[in-house]
Amino acid sequence: MIQILTYDGTTDADIFQRIHSSSGLEEAVAGIITEVREGGDEGLLRCCARFDGAAPSHLEVTPEELQAAFDGVDPKFLAILEKAAANITAFHSCQRRNSFILNDQTGIVLGQKVLPLERVGLYVPGGTALYPSSVLMNALPAKIAGVEELIMVTPAKEGNISPMILAAAKIAGVDRIFKVGGAQAVAALAYGTESIPKVDKIVGPGNAYVAEAKKQVFGLVDIDMIAGPSEILIVADGTGNPRHLAADMLSQAEHDKLASAVLVTDSPQLAAGVNLELERQLPLLPREDIARHAIEHHGKIILTANLETAIQLANRMAPEHLELCLDTPFDYLDQVRHAGSVFLGKNCPEALGDYLAGPNHTLPTSGTARFSSPLSVDDFVKKYQYTYYTGEALAAVAEEAAYFAEQEGLSAHARSLLVRLEAAVSIP
Amino acid sequence: MIQILTYDGTTDADIFQRIHSSSGLEEAVAGIITEVREGGDEGLLRCCARFDGAAPSHLEVTPEELQAAFDGVDPKFLAILEKAAANITAFHSCQRRNSFILNDQTGIVLGQKVLPLERVGLYVPGGTALYPSSVLMNALPAKIAGVEELIMVTPAKEGNISPMILAAAKIAGVDRIFKVGGAQAVAALAYGTESIPKVDKIVGPGNAYVAEAKKQVFGLVDIDMIAGPSEILIVADGTGNPRHLAADMLSQAEHDKLASAVLVTDSPQLAAGVNLELERQLPLLPREDIARHAIEHHGKIILTANLETAIQLANRMAPEHLELCLDTPFDYLDQVRHAGSVFLGKNCPEALGDYLAGPNHTLPTSGTARFSSPLSVDDFVKKYQYTYYTGEALAAVAEEAAYFAEQEGLSAHARSLLVRLEAAVSIP
Repeated sequence: MIQILTYDGTTDADIFQRIHSSSGLEEAVAGIITEVREGGDEGLLRCCARFDGAAPSHLEVTPEELQAAFDGVDPKFLAILEKAAANITAFHSCQRRNSFILNDQTGIVLGQKVLPLERVGLYVPGGTALYPSSVLMNALPAKIAGVEELIMVTPAKEGNISPMILAAAKIAGVDRIFKVGGAQAVAALAYGTESIPKVDKIVGPGNAYVAEAKKQVFGLVDIDMIAGPSEILIVADGTGNPRHLAADMLSQAEHDKLASAVLVTDSPQLAAGVNLELERQLPLLPREDIARHAIEHHGKIILTANLETAIQLANRMAPEHLELCLDTPFDYLDQVRHAGSVFLGKNCPEALGDYLAGPNHTLPTSGTARFSSPLSVDDFVKKYQYTYYTGEALAAVAEEAAYFAEQEGLSAHARSLLVRLEAAVSIP
Repeated sequence: MIQILTYDGTTDADIFQRIHSSSGLEEAVAGIITEVREGGDEGLLRCCARFDGAAPSHLEVTPEELQAAFDGVDPKFLAILEKAAANITAFHSCQRRNSFILNDQTGIVLGQKVLPLERVGLYVPGGTALYPSSVLMNALPAKIAGVEELIMVTPAKEGNISPMILAAAKIAGVDRIFKVGGAQAVAALAYGTESIPKVDKIVGPGNAYVAEAKKQVFGLVDIDMIAGPSEILIVADGTGNPRHLAADMLSQAEHDKLASAVLVTDSPQLAAGVNLELERQLPLLPREDIARHAIEHHGKIILTANLETAIQLANRMAPEHLELCLDTPFDYLDQVRHAGSVFLGKNCPEALGDYLAGPNHTLPTSGTARFSSPLSVDDFVKKYQYTYYTGEALAAVAEEAAYFAEQEGLSAHARSLLVRLEAAVSIP
């Protein structure tokens, strides 16, 4: 049973497990990166042999391998992948941005151009956690942004990659796939090798080695966020179904022993009911061990006087996932300020968003939703600005701009403006 | 004289000084941060006394101080500040984004909400480098984004802040101003003290201590980019005016001994002419020492066979500032892929963009324009997504989503979907 807490809107409840670990991986990962940076393919293959037991016989997945994997996947699953891809594409296409041009002063043109990143690397974990959904969620926004070359890396077991992962990659339009994983794969993407081209940005989830490697190459290339443990916060009133709400909490809890699942409600009856349901449902789960650990350590049920205070607590926690399990959830949406992804109403379990609904499932964790956003097309574009002045337009402002520069003590800046007014101003 | 190099489009010229220093500041800054985090105002004031000689008698600038400073500034300069603010506002207002809603399937509503950050901290350096332009360039996009509370911190000399800085803050709509600087000011913004509220993001330039402090608090709060030395790359043909081009290179060079100024041209005559002009103009500059060091160490003149190759080199370098000093610059704009801010034509010195034109002057350096963007309204907003399904809409997809979840080995995810189909599916 979870202890039921009370929140009155004033105290600062420590609701989620917030981890700031300092790992001892740094040196090991730094060594791997150096080996790949200096050794290229040779260094990369050495690392693969050392960490994965064997280096792949060929680094790149061939079109034939890809097609064979695709053909081998259950058609039912392929159809679901296609449907998920269509929904993700529809949603993320709304995120596309246009360049703009501003020309409201005679002789002056200002603009901002939005351009896709040229080449992006996508890390896909191997091992027990095989998430084709992550391939779609990372690859599709990149392709919708217009990324020219999307390069996937993923560890191969005895030369093979999961056909589900390859099928998702094919559906999402991944351009090239390499059979490498771990910190060495991140290093290869960041620095380039003879076989693997250097990219501009690296995205995708990975283990502690991968996350550390991404941190270390950040700056040379861009990276996406480094995700913390998964979190859900559910706001429900007395009309909530304890059976459904417990199932939603457990869906988060099965991810990871560090995952947090929190229910906030104004109904003591519901709180008690959900608590009982958690106990009843836990033994039904194949991943009971993980889920039980997460629920017992990071699960919470919190009572508030009303729904407004419940949402206020949600804003304070800025959860990765927020469910408003209410009959009229749109009445409350405006109160939500800080969350990654919000699930509205009683028919919208968070798992719908993990797979099919369309919004992204790569979300800010650990309270960072206060200032960061779900993965989106924005993460795969960059902008530059431009400025054009005619001679007349420059002449009208050059002396003012030069005066400003002089105030900042930057005379050469002033000179570069005034030197163009040859006729009007005398400057050596 | 700068050595004139040749670039044929194939070799990888190392054009800009690219710095990856590892500083010994880390521990010192970590200590300061701990002192402020643990000591609050008291710790903060202790740090101010230790590093600035004295702690300010009161931390926050009063409305009276602000008004007095404003009234004391030369009206001519105020008018220029107002004009700059108007241009910056006009340009950045084009960057505002709308939320969107997607409702093209019956019973399904998807959306993305764009919200301003609640509270942002702006660091403004004191000392010799007083840049009111930076106040405008950082504060205006934040206020245009809708940031509720913009908190400025800046070191005070004997209790006073430069009136120019205060005037710029007033014009830009900064909400509160505190007389603290250095790593301790960054720590106060990141953790909050009794006097200084905790913010969601910290922006603005600063010295090595400030930059290191921003790095260390990153994650707890968001930060803007950490800028490297300033860079300009100028593309010019034989019609260029050597006098103007040399002045533009020197305007960049006077910033910093590490600044880079590069001319790329297809005209050997122009290359020689600019080289002579650099020598002629250098002694005319008050900051000759700095500019000469920068030009001699990081200045380059590079010959290419044609303008296309010149722009190809610019893309390879992804310079912070790019001038296309050509008669028909818009003919070439489409070839530009990687740059921070582009200045088009012969009447558009980069300094125009530093002060008045309207586009931002906080730009990606060190080649990061390949994947990052000028500071913009985007840096002061965040997004969240939402999803709503009716019972019927859920029923239509729940089994497919559950099947997907089972393929990923996440049974509790599947359960949370199926448990809602009580009538149709039997699930314990």
